[in-house]
Amino acid sequence: MKTLTTVCRFLLALCPLWGVAQTQVEPRPVSTVVKAGKLLETREASYIENAVPSSVRPGVFNLSSVQSLPKTLAERLGFPRNAKLVIIHADDVGVTHSVNSATTQALETGLVNSASIMVPCPWFPEIADYAKSHPSVDFGLHLTLTSERVYYRWGPVASRDLVPTLLDSDGYLLHDWTSSTRIDPQQTEIELRAQINRAYDMGVHPTHLDSHQYRLYQNGPQLFQVALRLAHEYKLPLFVTRDWFPESPYLESNLGPDDVVIDHTVTISPGVAPDKWADFYTVALKNLQPGVTEFVIHLAFADDEMKAATRERDTWGAAWRQRDFDFFTGPAWRKLLQDQEIHLVTWRQIAQAAR
Amino acid sequence: MKTLTTVCRFLLALCPLWGVAQTQVEPRPVSTVVKAGKLLETREASYIENAVPSSVRPGVFNLSSVQSLPKTLAERLGFPRNAKLVIIHADDVGVTHSVNSATTQALETGLVNSASIMVPCPWFPEIADYAKSHPSVDFGLHLTLTSERVYYRWGPVASRDLVPTLLDSDGYLLHDWTSSTRIDPQQTEIELRAQINRAYDMGVHPTHLDSHQYRLYQNGPQLFQVALRLAHEYKLPLFVTRDWFPESPYLESNLGPDDVVIDHTVTISPGVAPDKWADFYTVALKNLQPGVTEFVIHLAFADDEMKAATRERDTWGAAWRQRDFDFFTGPAWRKLLQDQEIHLVTWRQIAQAAR
Repeated sequence: MKTLTTVCRFLLALCPLWGVAQTQVEPRPVSTVVKAGKLLETREASYIENAVPSSVRPGVFNLSSVQSLPKTLAERLGFPRNAKLVIIHADDVGVTHSVNSATTQALETGLVNSASIMVPCPWFPEIADYAKSHPSVDFGLHLTLTSERVYYRWGPVASRDLVPTLLDSDGYLLHDWTSSTRIDPQQTEIELRAQINRAYDMGVHPTHLDSHQYRLYQNGPQLFQVALRLAHEYKLPLFVTRDWFPESPYLESNLGPDDVVIDHTVTISPGVAPDKWADFYTVALKNLQPGVTEFVIHLAFADDEMKAATRERDTWGAAWRQRDFDFFTGPAWRKLLQDQEIHLVTWRQIAQAAR
Repeated sequence: MKTLTTVCRFLLALCPLWGVAQTQVEPRPVSTVVKAGKLLETREASYIENAVPSSVRPGVFNLSSVQSLPKTLAERLGFPRNAKLVIIHADDVGVTHSVNSATTQALETGLVNSASIMVPCPWFPEIADYAKSHPSVDFGLHLTLTSERVYYRWGPVASRDLVPTLLDSDGYLLHDWTSSTRIDPQQTEIELRAQINRAYDMGVHPTHLDSHQYRLYQNGPQLFQVALRLAHEYKLPLFVTRDWFPESPYLESNLGPDDVVIDHTVTISPGVAPDKWADFYTVALKNLQPGVTEFVIHLAFADDEMKAATRERDTWGAAWRQRDFDFFTGPAWRKLLQDQEIHLVTWRQIAQAAR
């Protein structure tokens, strides 16, 4: 009888979510955008609809409105069950001085409140120094397995002879992975452990882990298990959102009961025209679902360094990052957060709540 | 009798040089400046006198005016024995985008005519691409054993496991060498061979080799022998000037009869005040001795990237490099070269002449 009651409560909880899902266009999870970035660049369609979190769809359980279930992440963070909580998270810190400079400036506005650092990149020492002198800033590590640009590149932190499957013939981390690329999980673990250790050795005390270009989430269970193992070993939450479960079911099946799962994520895609940038984020915030949503953004100034570093393609390039910087440090975003009664939370808070 | 005649000719040749040497202040060879850079920064004295090549002093044989001796380098280059030939050589290409951009712009004026590239640095791919598409530009390799900045750093090209004596505890090439540093020559050879091979693999066909921060010249015969062995193996001339022989006699004793030796070198030192920059180079050019002189200069723009990359000290920093750029691409330098009847020569010409 008790089981039947629980099942009924599950089904009841799904009804309103199903209704929301029916009204949205075919969702395009972040992962698809990243995997097929070049293809999407050529499309003219607007993806502003994607600002509705893609996890809210049939077949995905969202338990946030079922009172008898275990505490939601929002509740564990000290908010009501249906609170709308947001992490405004800047990726790729350390990659260039321009990214470091724009990101630290944005963090100091308070309108961006979390970021993650690429340890193998040449400007890592600059951001490590900043992190050391700003210990309250919410810096995670953006675990990095690729060097995706053409004119500006970096290699691994581990000894090259220990991680050959991660490298191209010139010794840089691979520019991209294709269907024939075979990434060795053990070598991945060696490299990522080297990145985390260098961060600690240079004075960074990360609040969380995540994955540059989503490589550790989108390439099968073995690489995800590496990320999860390191997260457990270093006692750091790993950014995972249930938005990704439908496309990569091994994420959910590998997680344990103590692993943190963020409810949703929002990130802009190459399909959004530059003049629709503000519209995308505005719709995203207005359509925000209850729970914790991470906005994954990319900040930099469109200066000479950044233009040169990204000049072979516009996606996640200098102008893109300047648009993100302008929007997320501007008055419209501040007003939106206030008007929508959104609460900002950090990974440091999430890590504490999960303990 | 023939021997006596030769000795007399030697002594005769030395007389005018001795006179010049007597009028100059205690020479400060480049090596001293580099080794004790920080000390010199605090001195107020002007070193414009150093613009007189330091090799012109008692005890150093300058054979250029002895007609019966083997051909001088100037003659092998097709010029008269007493011609004044100059290489205007920009160091450190590849280190930042700013350096790449300023150097390629300067090379395109024709007033700077040679440069050398740091292969381990993050912007090497950008300059390798430029070198491939500009095959006539005189690019050498600036063999690199240190990562001398604080906020922006690079590691080795070889596997870290193979070159531990070159690395600090974070895996970067050493920031500096102290009296207790023990650099393994075999590891040095492994790293430098990896740098040269990466350059060729990425399409650079260097015209010469030289050494970043003069490390391979100033640290005993073993490291110099490594440089020389690689120069012979790859059939490339190695930048060596007889100006350095008095301080490092092992340079001369290790050279073979087929090795190229440049007559003089000029480089500005931290003791020169910014407002005396043009005076230093002007005096240097006006005091130029016969033979081949390499001006070692450092170009960049004083932009955000370069200021951040060099902000812990002014020496060889953003403003320094902007001053070099402004002078060596400006009208005063062009007029000086014309007025003094100076001929520019490249390392490509020197390599051809040496064959």
